[in-house]
Amino acid sequence: MKEYEKTKLNRVKRGQNRAIYDVEKINTILDAGFLCYVGYIYDGKPITIPMAYARRDDKIYIHGSTANRMLLSILKSEETSITVMHLDGLVLARSGLHHSVNYRSATLFGSLKKIEKDSDKSQILGWIVNQMMPNHWGSLRPMHQKELDRTLVVEFTIETASAKIRDVGVNDEPEDYSLPIWAGVVPIKQVAEYPVSDEKLIEGVSIPEHVLAYYQQNK
Amino acid sequence: MKEYEKTKLNRVKRGQNRAIYDVEKINTILDAGFLCYVGYIYDGKPITIPMAYARRDDKIYIHGSTANRMLLSILKSEETSITVMHLDGLVLARSGLHHSVNYRSATLFGSLKKIEKDSDKSQILGWIVNQMMPNHWGSLRPMHQKELDRTLVVEFTIETASAKIRDVGVNDEPEDYSLPIWAGVVPIKQVAEYPVSDEKLIEGVSIPEHVLAYYQQNK
Repeated sequence: MKEYEKTKLNRVKRGQNRAIYDVEKINTILDAGFLCYVGYIYDGKPITIPMAYARRDDKIYIHGSTANRMLLSILKSEETSITVMHLDGLVLARSGLHHSVNYRSATLFGSLKKIEKDSDKSQILGWIVNQMMPNHWGSLRPMHQKELDRTLVVEFTIETASAKIRDVGVNDEPEDYSLPIWAGVVPIKQVAEYPVSDEKLIEGVSIPEHVLAYYQQNK
Repeated sequence: MKEYEKTKLNRVKRGQNRAIYDVEKINTILDAGFLCYVGYIYDGKPITIPMAYARRDDKIYIHGSTANRMLLSILKSEETSITVMHLDGLVLARSGLHHSVNYRSATLFGSLKKIEKDSDKSQILGWIVNQMMPNHWGSLRPMHQKELDRTLVVEFTIETASAKIRDVGVNDEPEDYSLPIWAGVVPIKQVAEYPVSDEKLIEGVSIPEHVLAYYQQNK
C-alpha cells in the first residue's frame, strides 16, 4: 500500500479515524468525478474556483483559455490546492450536534507546470473530456491548431494529499437513543437525465452508444 | 434591483455575458444548497474545505468544534472566500473546445466574526440544520449547554460577490454544424433516495412528514 507522507499540511486533525493517505483510495475518489475546486491566492486573498480535471498517475490536469487571467494567476501563484468532494448522504441524528453528511473528499497539494508541446496538450484535453464523459473524445472533430494555441493546459503534480470518507449511519449520544425522535440517513446521489440532442444536428446523427451507456450507468 | 458593486475582486473577466451581481439572484443560488467551499490561507497556502452553511440576509453562517483548528485558522486568517456551485448538465459539443457544463455558481468575499451569545449560536445552528433539511430543527432535542460551549459559530458577512449561470445548449463553431457528430446536453441532478431509518429507533417512531416531503421534492 503506497501512502502519502503525513506532513503538517495534509495531516487530518479532526476525525482522524476517517483519514486516508492511501494513494489508490485517494485516486478512486478523484476518478469518481471530473469537477475539482482549485484554491489559489490572488492579491493576498484565497479564491476557490470549480474546474474540470483529468487524473493520470500522480498528475491532475486542468485547462482554460490563454486569456483566462484566473488560470494565469493560478500558474503564477505557485501555491495551489485542489479539493474534490462527493456528497453521499444527509446524516440526521437525534441531536443537532451529531448531524453530519456522508461523503468522500480528497485534498491535494502540489506544484504546477504549464504544458508546452501541442501533442501533449491535445492528448491531455482528450483525457479531460473523457473524464467528464468516458470514451467521448474519439467521436469529436480533431482540434484546430489555433484552438490549441489559445488553450492553456496546466499539470498539477500531487506532492501530498489526504482524504476523508464518511459512510456510516447515525452516531448519537448513548442516552439519546431512548428519545422518541427519528434519526436516519437520506442517501444523496448525482444522476444524469436522458441526453437532450442539439436541435441543429444534421439528419441521421443519433445519440452515440457511449453517451447512452453513461446515462444508463448514472440515471 | 440591488447589486453588489463590481470591484477588482469580484468582477467576472471570462464569460462576462453570464456574470451576475444581482443580490437576489445570488441569494437564490445560495439558498439552493447547503454545502459551500470555504477558501482560506494556512501557512501561506490556499486551502479549500467543504462546509455546511446557512444564509440569512447578507450573512453566511458556518460552524465547527472549538477544537477544529481549521475553523480557528479560518477565523484568524481574516481573508476568506466562499464558493457555492450547482452542476446542472454536461454540454457536449462537436469540438473539444466547446465542451462545457451548465451550472449555477456564486463566489462571495467578506469578513468573519465569531458569534458569542448562546441564544444566537443556538438559533444559527438551527438555521444550518434547516438549510440541509427544511423544518428539521424543531424535531430534535434541544442542545445541551456543554454542546453549545464546544461549538464555534462563525458569521461571514458578504461584502462583495458575483455569480455565473450557464443554462443554454451547445455553442459550436458555425462551420461545425454540418459535421456528422452528435452534440447535446446531458442534464445532471442531485437527488435524494428514500430515507434509511436508524436501526436503533425506539418503537413507534416513523419517518417525519418533513423528511418524506424532502424526499418527494428531491427524488
